[in-house]
Amino acid sequence: MRIGELSRRTGVSVPTIKYYVREGLLPAGRLTSPNQASYEEAHVRRLRLIRALLDVGGLSVAGLREVVAAVDDSERPLHGMLGAVADNVVPRYEGAGDEPGEALVAARAAVADLIDRRGWHTDSRGPAAEALAVALSALENVGHGGFVEVLDAYAEAAESVARTDLEYVARNVVREELVESVVVGIVLGDAMLGALRRLAHADASVKIFGEER
Amino acid sequence: MRIGELSRRTGVSVPTIKYYVREGLLPAGRLTSPNQASYEEAHVRRLRLIRALLDVGGLSVAGLREVVAAVDDSERPLHGMLGAVADNVVPRYEGAGDEPGEALVAARAAVADLIDRRGWHTDSRGPAAEALAVALSALENVGHGGFVEVLDAYAEAAESVARTDLEYVARNVVREELVESVVVGIVLGDAMLGALRRLAHADASVKIFGEER
Repeated sequence: MRIGELSRRTGVSVPTIKYYVREGLLPAGRLTSPNQASYEEAHVRRLRLIRALLDVGGLSVAGLREVVAAVDDSERPLHGMLGAVADNVVPRYEGAGDEPGEALVAARAAVADLIDRRGWHTDSRGPAAEALAVALSALENVGHGGFVEVLDAYAEAAESVARTDLEYVARNVVREELVESVVVGIVLGDAMLGALRRLAHADASVKIFGEER
Repeated sequence: MRIGELSRRTGVSVPTIKYYVREGLLPAGRLTSPNQASYEEAHVRRLRLIRALLDVGGLSVAGLREVVAAVDDSERPLHGMLGAVADNVVPRYEGAGDEPGEALVAARAAVADLIDRRGWHTDSRGPAAEALAVALSALENVGHGGFVEVLDAYAEAAESVARTDLEYVARNVVREELVESVVVGIVLGDAMLGALRRLAHADASVKIFGEER
């Protein structure tokens, strides 16, 4: 198909499509004449992936470039591949202060304890563990260090969602689409879970604090 | 305290503190001479809140300004206040296409059904419901419309986390600090839950796909 049809089918403007090609996020079309290129279904799919990750996932173009590289690397073995993708879409938090303060040191220990307590086969020094430690230490810095008490309730919910995700993947996803699905699932799943948590907050707030209009 | 001590205690540089004052995010100090201002504990607390929301929550300065205005508005009644804060910290997603396509229309109906099915006292047309619909329609657009089947498993996990959050708030938070705590809890709780989900994914991946190193 021509670029105009690609644009129509994906809702992405022609200049934006050209920008993604220049940025290396979308493979160039096959040249059919010096001024015209032809695009395939794979381009439609990739454009929808890019838009989903940018618009809903809130990834930056730089972050997206890393993720797309992982999706395109078909050589990577399954096990390591999933980990690499997960690492790439974890935001790299900077922490609340200029140096790793006491709160962060304590939070890292709390995270290592949690992983141990739950018997998770997971890296207690990887980016996800660090992101959790940074969030916990930020809570401590704003006076809510007590929130660490509810960590297990959160972990339980996360386990249940992760099991749901992986069962969906095992049931519905063919191997060639696995990395793409994992990326989509991590980013859009976070957006879903965040939105659902807000909806459930509104409900829990009515139930606990009552209707005080 | 002077601005130098405020900087030391919060890990925020003096020029950055001045920038926050200019942006209306941090109240100015009390002038003790034409060139010197004095800062209180409230400034320390506010700076830590700002850094937590920017660094861990990933809010923009504009988003932060809205949230800080809600925190400072002590006139707002409890019930509406919680809702307003929750709405302010929901990212405003743009959707994957240029117009509300079929996928988004179907996703909105699925969200309304879900809210109805679970008996949630919550606005099925508010920003959180819309954010969920946008995420679902983005999944549909990248070929994972089937993910809607697992919506209830996600909703169950979200309910459990929301109950935990509100019980923590009811137990630990005095009324004056309620809005601040809700903001922090929404933003940092999302970061925690996202990080925990990744940790649990790594574990579930080992259990379901086995060790294939």
